[in-house]
Amino acid sequence: TLQHIFKEIFKASLELQEDDHSKALLVSRKNHPQNTIVDIKGEQIGDGQQRLIVGPCSVESFEQVDEVAAAVKKQGLKLLRGGAFKPRTSPYDFQGLGVEGLKILKEVADKHDLAVISEIVTPHDIETAVDYLDVIQIGARNMQNFELLKAAGSVNKPILLKRGLSATIAEFINAAEYIHSRGNGQIILCERGIRTYETATRNTLDISAVPILKQETHLPVFVDVTHSTGRRDLLLPTAKAALAIGADGVMTEVHPDPAVALSDSAQQMDIPQFEEFLAKLEESGLYKPGKVTIK
Amino acid sequence: TLQHIFKEIFKASLELQEDDHSKALLVSRKNHPQNTIVDIKGEQIGDGQQRLIVGPCSVESFEQVDEVAAAVKKQGLKLLRGGAFKPRTSPYDFQGLGVEGLKILKEVADKHDLAVISEIVTPHDIETAVDYLDVIQIGARNMQNFELLKAAGSVNKPILLKRGLSATIAEFINAAEYIHSRGNGQIILCERGIRTYETATRNTLDISAVPILKQETHLPVFVDVTHSTGRRDLLLPTAKAALAIGADGVMTEVHPDPAVALSDSAQQMDIPQFEEFLAKLEESGLYKPGKVTIK
Amino acid sequence: TLQHIFKEIFKASLELQEDDHSKALLVSRKNHPQNTIVDIKGEQIGDGQQRLIVGPCSVESFEQVDEVAAAVKKQGLKLLRGGAFKPRTSPYDFQGLGVEGLKILKEVADKHDLAVISEIVTPHDIETAVDYLDVIQIGARNMQNFELLKAAGSVNKPILLKRGLSATIAEFINAAEYIHSRGNGQIILCERGIRTYETATRNTLDISAVPILKQETHLPVFVDVTHSTGRRDLLLPTAKAALAIGADGVMTEVHPDPAVALSDSAQQMDIPQFEEFLAKLEESGLYKPGKVTIK
Amino acid sequence: TLQHIFKEIFKASLELQEDDHSKALLVSRKNHPQNTIVDIKGEQIGDGQQRLIVGPCSVESFEQVDEVAAAVKKQGLKLLRGGAFKPRTSPYDFQGLGVEGLKILKEVADKHDLAVISEIVTPHDIETAVDYLDVIQIGARNMQNFELLKAAGSVNKPILLKRGLSATIAEFINAAEYIHSRGNGQIILCERGIRTYETATRNTLDISAVPILKQETHLPVFVDVTHSTGRRDLLLPTAKAALAIGADGVMTEVHPDPAVALSDSAQQMDIPQFEEFLAKLEESGLYKPGKVTIK
Repeated sequence: TLQHIFKEIFKASLELQEDDHSKALLVSRKNHPQNTIVDIKGEQIGDGQQRLIVGPCSVESFEQVDEVAAAVKKQGLKLLRGGAFKPRTSPYDFQGLGVEGLKILKEVADKHDLAVISEIVTPHDIETAVDYLDVIQIGARNMQNFELLKAAGSVNKPILLKRGLSATIAEFINAAEYIHSRGNGQIILCERGIRTYETATRNTLDISAVPILKQETHLPVFVDVTHSTGRRDLLLPTAKAALAIGADGVMTEVHPDPAVALSDSAQQMDIPQFEEFLAKLEESGLYKPGKVTIK
Repeated sequence: TLQHIFKEIFKASLELQEDDHSKALLVSRKNHPQNTIVDIKGEQIGDGQQRLIVGPCSVESFEQVDEVAAAVKKQGLKLLRGGAFKPRTSPYDFQGLGVEGLKILKEVADKHDLAVISEIVTPHDIETAVDYLDVIQIGARNMQNFELLKAAGSVNKPILLKRGLSATIAEFINAAEYIHSRGNGQIILCERGIRTYETATRNTLDISAVPILKQETHLPVFVDVTHSTGRRDLLLPTAKAALAIGADGVMTEVHPDPAVALSDSAQQMDIPQFEEFLAKLEESGLYKPGKVTIK
Repeated sequence: TLQHIFKEIFKASLELQEDDHSKALLVSRKNHPQNTIVDIKGEQIGDGQQRLIVGPCSVESFEQVDEVAAAVKKQGLKLLRGGAFKPRTSPYDFQGLGVEGLKILKEVADKHDLAVISEIVTPHDIETAVDYLDVIQIGARNMQNFELLKAAGSVNKPILLKRGLSATIAEFINAAEYIHSRGNGQIILCERGIRTYETATRNTLDISAVPILKQETHLPVFVDVTHSTGRRDLLLPTAKAALAIGADGVMTEVHPDPAVALSDSAQQMDIPQFEEFLAKLEESGLYKPGKVTIK
Repeated sequence: TLQHIFKEIFKASLELQEDDHSKALLVSRKNHPQNTIVDIKGEQIGDGQQRLIVGPCSVESFEQVDEVAAAVKKQGLKLLRGGAFKPRTSPYDFQGLGVEGLKILKEVADKHDLAVISEIVTPHDIETAVDYLDVIQIGARNMQNFELLKAAGSVNKPILLKRGLSATIAEFINAAEYIHSRGNGQIILCERGIRTYETATRNTLDISAVPILKQETHLPVFVDVTHSTGRRDLLLPTAKAALAIGADGVMTEVHPDPAVALSDSAQQMDIPQFEEFLAKLEESGLYKPGKVTIK
């Protein structure tokens, strides 16, 4: 029948359009079938080995970051995170130490030979950050701050891009494209939970986003288990799920004394909890430090 | 300060209330710390071993179910699913074979010595179903059909209760309580994705719900990877995540010829795809048939 | 170009499909361009005049309903609501008086010459309800309880169908079609808020659903301002919005003493508040009792 | 009982906390009970009269803006909008004319004696914008771009702040507080729809947010009917609802030839449609140009 023919043409047309569209994107796997590997001080992110990014929510002092860094180093890990510019819902909450925080991070990283990751929130600070950081993070609230994405695309430094609070996967991929289109293809995507009606968790971890992002793009994909759940008791099980589903790594927050942390006190692990977290992750067989584990 | 004291009293009071509330529930782990084990024809669901429930979306004919059952049996699995009463958005879509479908399921299950699971949609049919089924499923659209829950609570037959399309975890637990409060404690909970703004998947698999439900209740928890994703290409990765996070099992749909299925044709596996799915699941080390795998 | 031609064919094909699909539905305005008018004891719902449905959340006693009915009558209104079968999240909450509640409603309605509306939750009770009620309500949790919809379609009694907690407009229209397809075309649709991430209100009133439902179907459309907001202070403003946007009426809850109500105590008005609500609605010019007001 | 006493203390404590919290905010009505009136070239926004902000989605040329401005002027309106910096999902979509667009807006506004509103997307451009614009808009994607909010708080120019795509009302109020805390209290809030699962509209207009924002803050509140619905056929009904519920004004998009618009072609009105929109709004009695209409 005519209608059947129409439907077939319609399907063909849709596929044509979609092919066209995703072929056009630099971050698309259709354009570039092999995995992008992002080199961070020798760590080859995206090479099939799964990694952890660990550190306090906010940089509060040299001593605080140093204590976490020592614990990270002791576990044989390489990637340290810490917030210097903190986007906060209220203007009266702690806003971070700013450039002072970046300096602390660099000093600690140099001391322990770690790589360091921190969020930058204005185009203007991107250039400053290049001198202090090994990876520049673009946070969830800024995923569609397109001027910031363009600035991140103009430097020669790996970018960790977090998914927006209610961004679709298609919007997330386009945000990465903003960076790549300016010339910087060293991008790590990070799923960190989306906003839904459920209140048992801070956000809802969209675990299916991981295999979709791995299929649609050639970029490494991390899962931030701290912000997606907002619950210390869910960090271990969600980290297992993230590793099992094929994430290139997991990001989580550790603080020497979470109870007095200037932000996110309810969801950070202290150092013994972190060591137990890591031990149980290894025990599960899902995390094998130093070995290729993604199947 | 006065305010600080108020806050402390406030916290104590909140905890008191919560303790009270969840202690009161029969399904709460506070009431009953050890795992409930649901016996289905000798399969001890909730004993630490992880299992699969497999079968076609809809029962279409004896031959169709028989073909899937043979494949299920061949893989050493025990639990067969199939829809006889189909809740469909449009009244003009295929509504299932009804009691005829239940008869087919029983006949096939007897032939292959499998246990059989199917959805019932009215209180009136619960009694009929008892004669044909090993597990009665309450579907997502009926999670708050309280009269159906009460009827399910009044029979001596295991119940698989699916989470509602936009049910909170607290509402889900209360729905299980409706069943238990009528005397039937043989309940399996099933996460099947929630409704969010994201359109890349049919629903959003709320993987964190699994450890929360395991903590809050003593009931076994399954994950339906077919309905949570609606995508054949995501069945394997989400099944891995479900097993890694500690689900007691995974439910998925298999049809001899998905392209001509009367429902859900886009998301069912055919038999060779199912065999590959199972092989890759075993290869990943996450699924060990016949062995206790939850850590 | 070829692609442009494809796109044009694609659009044509899409329109063809949509036309086809909505033409097929009995509730579609394409099928039946003129408004359906539902006669409730002489009130012509859908005739252009806007009406109120008022009453307590739950029927608690003859005296309680009688007191509200007297207030409703005094204001020249005709349509009384009250819950006899109460779907509640917890099995331990008040579940309603059941058939006893229906009898109270009928007795009070007869005394004051009002029409009475109440929710029915199982197919089995629909037949009983026909003797007591002027309108049978299908609640939000049962919008996709298809067996209940079919039963509602098989009686000769107006049905007020509430939108499901997270139902799309398309699913809502299909739920109405379930009723109509069984022979009962006397259907009133009721928007009652949808589940979103926002917690300032109990649900999010989807006000745009009103004009969409009026365009897509020929059925009258009401707005339940009580359940969509869950806040007494928002009843008046949202009722104004509902009338302004073209709803055929507004439903709200009134209780002689909300503080001791057995359900929804925080959102019901007492009788003086209800009288003030009505006075302010008239004062706004948006509500003109007894006159055609929809433009 | 002890528990009852605890509950009472708990409630008292909660109220105390809340009082404290919202009293602390500069934008809170508790702090400042009278309405803030924002003066825009003599228009007293927030004085009880309801107003329209009208103009094309994007500034494309002097002629295009001039044509719309003439139509706006002809209708006795004063407030013209137009996008010069366009935040777009894809980097390959039209990004706006930038400063060139601001110049066109100013030239046209001066010619017709209108006030002009446009979105600014980086802190750096705020200072430039001050010379060209009468109102600086912060868009939905930048509602939690805190550095941009701080920059907007540091200039002496009215700010129109749009609600984020999935911002809670509490987060929206805190975003306004970022601006006010830096010294600029001339803030207009704009509800523009939130992201939900519903796909019949581009976003879901959260109409209840209007009375909540009017209660919680002393700031004027607008409703953007174009972006909340994304459908030309819903502009008139939602504008009526917005005016009826007490918004201080409505924002909508008009383009001389929407079919060839460089953005949002499906939802802009052409000039005759705009004139009909306005005529019907006046006919409804909800919009009275030049008169105080909020009750």
